[in-house]
Amino acid sequence: MSKEQITSHHTPFLETLTDHGNKARSALLDRIPTGEPYEHLYGPMRSFIQNSGKGLRPALLMATCNAFGGHEEDALPSAAVLELLHNAFLIHDDIEDISDFRRGKPCLHHEIGVPLAINLGDAMQAMALRFLRQDLGRLSAETGARVVAEFDHLLRESIEGQALELGMIRNNALDVEPDDYLLMTLKKTCWYSFIHPCRIGALIARPEEVASGRLNLDDFNSFGFFLGAAFQIQDDVLNLIGSKKKYGKEIGGDIYEGKRTLMLARLANVIDVVERDQLETYLGKPRQLRSQKEIDWVIERMQAHDCISYAQSASRSLLDAARNAFDPLFRNANEKDRKFFLDFMAYMVLRDV
Amino acid sequence: MSKEQITSHHTPFLETLTDHGNKARSALLDRIPTGEPYEHLYGPMRSFIQNSGKGLRPALLMATCNAFGGHEEDALPSAAVLELLHNAFLIHDDIEDISDFRRGKPCLHHEIGVPLAINLGDAMQAMALRFLRQDLGRLSAETGARVVAEFDHLLRESIEGQALELGMIRNNALDVEPDDYLLMTLKKTCWYSFIHPCRIGALIARPEEVASGRLNLDDFNSFGFFLGAAFQIQDDVLNLIGSKKKYGKEIGGDIYEGKRTLMLARLANVIDVVERDQLETYLGKPRQLRSQKEIDWVIERMQAHDCISYAQSASRSLLDAARNAFDPLFRNANEKDRKFFLDFMAYMVLRDV
Repeated sequence: MSKEQITSHHTPFLETLTDHGNKARSALLDRIPTGEPYEHLYGPMRSFIQNSGKGLRPALLMATCNAFGGHEEDALPSAAVLELLHNAFLIHDDIEDISDFRRGKPCLHHEIGVPLAINLGDAMQAMALRFLRQDLGRLSAETGARVVAEFDHLLRESIEGQALELGMIRNNALDVEPDDYLLMTLKKTCWYSFIHPCRIGALIARPEEVASGRLNLDDFNSFGFFLGAAFQIQDDVLNLIGSKKKYGKEIGGDIYEGKRTLMLARLANVIDVVERDQLETYLGKPRQLRSQKEIDWVIERMQAHDCISYAQSASRSLLDAARNAFDPLFRNANEKDRKFFLDFMAYMVLRDV
Repeated sequence: MSKEQITSHHTPFLETLTDHGNKARSALLDRIPTGEPYEHLYGPMRSFIQNSGKGLRPALLMATCNAFGGHEEDALPSAAVLELLHNAFLIHDDIEDISDFRRGKPCLHHEIGVPLAINLGDAMQAMALRFLRQDLGRLSAETGARVVAEFDHLLRESIEGQALELGMIRNNALDVEPDDYLLMTLKKTCWYSFIHPCRIGALIARPEEVASGRLNLDDFNSFGFFLGAAFQIQDDVLNLIGSKKKYGKEIGGDIYEGKRTLMLARLANVIDVVERDQLETYLGKPRQLRSQKEIDWVIERMQAHDCISYAQSASRSLLDAARNAFDPLFRNANEKDRKFFLDFMAYMVLRDV
């Protein structure tokens, strides 16, 4: 499929995706204060959210709610909280990764400084839990408590996953096996971006079935893991071979940041001892001593050893596994909702942005 | 009163304080995971809490619960959460202030690096809200919900206050009036360290009276504000004239960090235009270009213009106001509990560490 085919094929899908995302963002902005302290807190918070991405996560949550026969508006408050937490994670992640670009613009910590950006992320995390406490819409108290428990687990997994990733970088670990990479990705990305959006959407659509045990939310875990890992690997690939204009971040930035990607893990496993030493020396350097020439060398070695095609192949296998897990899970959904998910899965891995 | 007199006078008080603090810390450590990811998350979290201070905040919460006839053990889960949030704030504050020392040791971000320290603070904030959701001890659902609302407000005020403080530094504001300083201190320090501990302790002791409106928790607000502002000003004074060994932080560190203290606000108000320009130039410099000689000059100017004695006098006036607010609030408390509070107030302002 050519890029043009994907784009035209995906137009109705992208419209639904954007529509869900916009609704969640709008519901979120309605709830964020417009008062003081504005200049250093609520102002930059509102701008950051206004400039946010397509809203994959709230869209997945709302689409799952629809697919299980729920009312989209019941899912909206939870979708807004999810988008808020996602933005909070991005702000702190960009500081932790010492990133420079996000969404085609300098990162927030370059605009308002690291101290205020840390505080802004804290405010957003605190606010997410306030919204959960104060307004989950028309849910019963029991269902509301289950939704809060989902978000609680989401926070725990994401933060533990972040500790795994940052710990590997800090230890300059080169013995990262595919399993380590997948565990880190499960915790850091899959739970909050894929598994919990499905679980929460289904829970809101079918609270009685969840309560009675007829619908087991754990059934979404494999699907979300496969899809999330496929997405993350593709995201890491785009960081190497994408265009900065579309991708919105610096190309090769992950290598500059020392991120433990599947390509890096693969490279460390297949190169000879001399090159491995060279790689380890590069990754052990303080950030500011890493040159573009070295980054180019790492990318060139990854290409020479087929690490990028290895990762793309892994991503496609995971996508196939997600498709297999999807069928029985969503067998009762109507054709329109099923179509959205099938397009969503293709988009996750075939997208070039 | 000499320092020796204060110390001997305060021995039983300090024992009670430490006892409350130790109980809260121990209850907290019992609930913090001991599993993975340990090296980069739960390990440093446990060490940081084990090495924490006296536990002023949980002690105040538990003492208020006692003074209002409650059971100390009912207050313990809330006291533990408060101590956890306090530690979370300290970790992020030290990064935001680019501080070097805490509790006589290098700050956590020097030990484990800024990225992991940011993530650790996030984990502690998320965990605090998990504990509130899962276990507030024997409280009724209604009282539990009120306690959570108190913590929610506590988080909001503290983070807004931090935005005010960091914003003043970022704008290199020199036109900080005493009212600006007091508003910032109310939000950043008083709510979480003084007002909410009293409110939560009284709420847990007398839930029915709070529900019926016979006990209005807002009555604690002035008392906590006066006491908190007195404490914060004294804390800022100790940063200038204390001993590093006792105080545990670098002396003059606030000036190096550009913190807007009452002394700095006063100095900017009373110096002539030439010195004001010199002060503004110093505070406008990037941190690494600020020399010890310049810090000494600022301290010397503060002394020459009686800014430190001005602040100490303000702190004592606020302490008097706190004592006046205390009497009607705690009129029904028994002698032992009243004595603890009277000693607590004296200690806040007369302490040298």
